Parts: sequence; C-alpha cells; structure tokens
Amino acid sequence: MARADDPGIEALIELMARLPGLGPRSARRAVLALLGRRGQLMAPLAQAMAHVALTAKDCRVCGNISTEELCPICADPARANGEVCVVEDVADLWAMERANAFQGRYHVLGGTLSALDGVGPVELGIPRLVRRVGEEGLTEVILALAATVDGQTTAHYLADALAETPAQITSLAQGVPVGGELDYLDDGTIGAALRARRRF
Amino acid sequence: MARADDPGIEALIELMARLPGLGPRSARRAVLALLGRRGQLMAPLAQAMAHVALTAKDCRVCGNISTEELCPICADPARANGEVCVVEDVADLWAMERANAFQGRYHVLGGTLSALDGVGPVELGIPRLVRRVGEEGLTEVILALAATVDGQTTAHYLADALAETPAQITSLAQGVPVGGELDYLDDGTIGAALRARRRF
Repeated sequence: MARADDPGIEALIELMARLPGLGPRSARRAVLALLGRRGQLMAPLAQAMAHVALTAKDCRVCGNISTEELCPICADPARANGEVCVVEDVADLWAMERANAFQGRYHVLGGTLSALDGVGPVELGIPRLVRRVGEEGLTEVILALAATVDGQTTAHYLADALAETPAQITSLAQGVPVGGELDYLDDGTIGAALRARRRF
Repeated sequence: MARADDPGIEALIELMARLPGLGPRSARRAVLALLGRRGQLMAPLAQAMAHVALTAKDCRVCGNISTEELCPICADPARANGEVCVVEDVADLWAMERANAFQGRYHVLGGTLSALDGVGPVELGIPRLVRRVGEEGLTEVILALAATVDGQTTAHYLADALAETPAQITSLAQGVPVGGELDYLDDGTIGAALRARRRF
C-alpha cells in the first residue's frame, strides 16, 4: 500500500500500527497528526518514549514496571500496611490502582503457571513472595487473579505455597458487577454470587 | 486518575493520549504493550519517531512532508508528466497516492483561503504554483479540493490566478461514490451527479 512514499515516515507508520488499538489506517492518521505538530508533540513523545524504553525496569521487590529501581508503590512507606495483593501482570496492578481501593503493596507474577510454556513457580517469583511474607511481616496475601482455569490453578498453588506462613490468604470476591444486570450475566457468575450471598 | 504512579510512564501515557484515535484508556493500553516489548518495539519506535521529528520537512517544491529536501514524488523523474494536482493537505495527498490513479506531481496548499485566520494566497503558495506552471511546463492543474465552501472558494481563486497560464484547469468530478447507494446520499451529491450525467 503506497502511503507516505517516504521510507522514514513509512517505517514510523508501520511501527505505530503494531500498537494495540491502532491499525494501518489509524496509525497513518496518528503519524499525520504528529507530522503536523513536530515540535510540540512528536519530538516530546519520541523523547518520553526513548526515556521510558531506556529506564523502565521491573521493580526488584514486586515486579511492577517503573523507571526507578524501586517502584513508587514499594518506595512509599505509607503502603507498608501488611497487605500484599498478587496480580497476574502490570495491567492488573494499574487496574487495582485506578479502583483506588487498596492501600497495600503488590506482587506481580508476570503470568500464570503453565507447564506447557515452561512457566513454573520460580518464573512467577513465588519463592520470592514467600520470603517477603516473613521479611516484611505481611499479615494478608490477597489473590487478585483472573477467574479463569489458569488463574485459579495458580491461585491454588499460591495458597499451598503460602500455607506455612503466618499470613492470611484471601481472594477477591466473585459476584454481580456493580451496575451489572442479571439478564446479561453468565450462569457461572450468577451461581457464584448466589453461593456467596450475604445478609441484606 | 492514578495510573502508573511513575512520572516517566505517566508523561508518556499523557502524550500518547493526544494522538487522534487514542483516548486516555487506549493510550494506557498502548503504553502497557510497549512496556512489555521494550526492546523489540518501544526502542525502535522511539528512534523512528525521533528521526522523523528531526528530519521531516516540507518539500520545497510541492509542500509534501518527507525526510528529504525534495520529496520522493518531486524527486521521481517519472512523475514529471505535466500534470499537477492541488490538494489541501498532506492527508489528501496520501489519499490520492493510495488511490494509485494519479501519475503526476502535487501542490500542497496547507489549508484553504481564510481572511479570518489570515491565510492568504502567499501562505498557500499560490504564486509559487503559478511560477511552477511556467518553469515546469505544466499542461494541466487538477484542483482536488474539498467540496466545502472554503474548498470551493479556494478553487475559484486558484482558477482565476491560473487563468493567464497555458495550463488547463480541471477539477475532480462530483457524483455518486463507487459502491454508494442513492438512498444514503445527500441531496447535493445526487443533484451534482444528475447535472453531470453522462451517456451510458
């Protein structure tokens, strides 16, 4: 597809089109917008991206991605409340932070257990999490994993691995989403919500 | 909105969200994807963007944007067929090139005449276009401007300005789009298509 006919601009469009949510068409539109604002937007964006590409690393404590050795959550003493939330990836950590409902720290697994893909407990940092419970005196480990087969297999493995520690193991409640209509919910969710029903 | 909690990553999300087609949510998703592929995607993208931001310039002949002093179309001797197509902006030039139906060169106005915004003939490079007709021995100037009031005002000005040159002035045909159903067309288009009807 002839687009910009300029090799540099075409290479940029092609890389942009690999971003989720952008196709070849919207990547071209985005690059056109950038070309129209080379000084105000394109140069700062390139610089910010290069900076993050160069400095972003996994937090050595929790596995969150940040541009510091220790991520802002692990670096914040106010977050040391004895609770650690186990999430599958950084996207889930960001989702938890957006909900603004959790004041503790995290452990980012970076995936789920998968014998097929060679992902075992060490790859997910589970021994490191067990050590953290003792070292940081954690009182509660909240398993915030997806309600999928892989997520729940990993959750059960974690519960076993942490059974010997003094920390309480909990998991996110399953039930009707806020604003959710029963009519649109799958049977599994309705069943789980019914089993976990509470006094009104 | 708490998002990444990391100033570098947050700045990147904020800049990404300014691209057309990306909102705060999809910008975050795009940055997460970049963070997961820092070496394979993020670093090359940052580099390609910096390169274009630094080298992109308006072609001194036609106003197309490219990373060379002379854009690939003006640099291609095969495109010197005596035809020049006048478009409003680079997006329109790219659209023409995608259609793969035009083998001549371009003149990019960079806007339309607007007394209110202080955009006059010189800002649109119209005297330069008139000179090109003589210098390059152009035989036809195709006005490919939008069928809006501004576009048509500019087209009429161009036709007047070029009236003294030997070049023939033409404009894109108006009519029913290929694949278009009459039922969904506006009255103006149907009227224009009817007035420009041709023997079948």
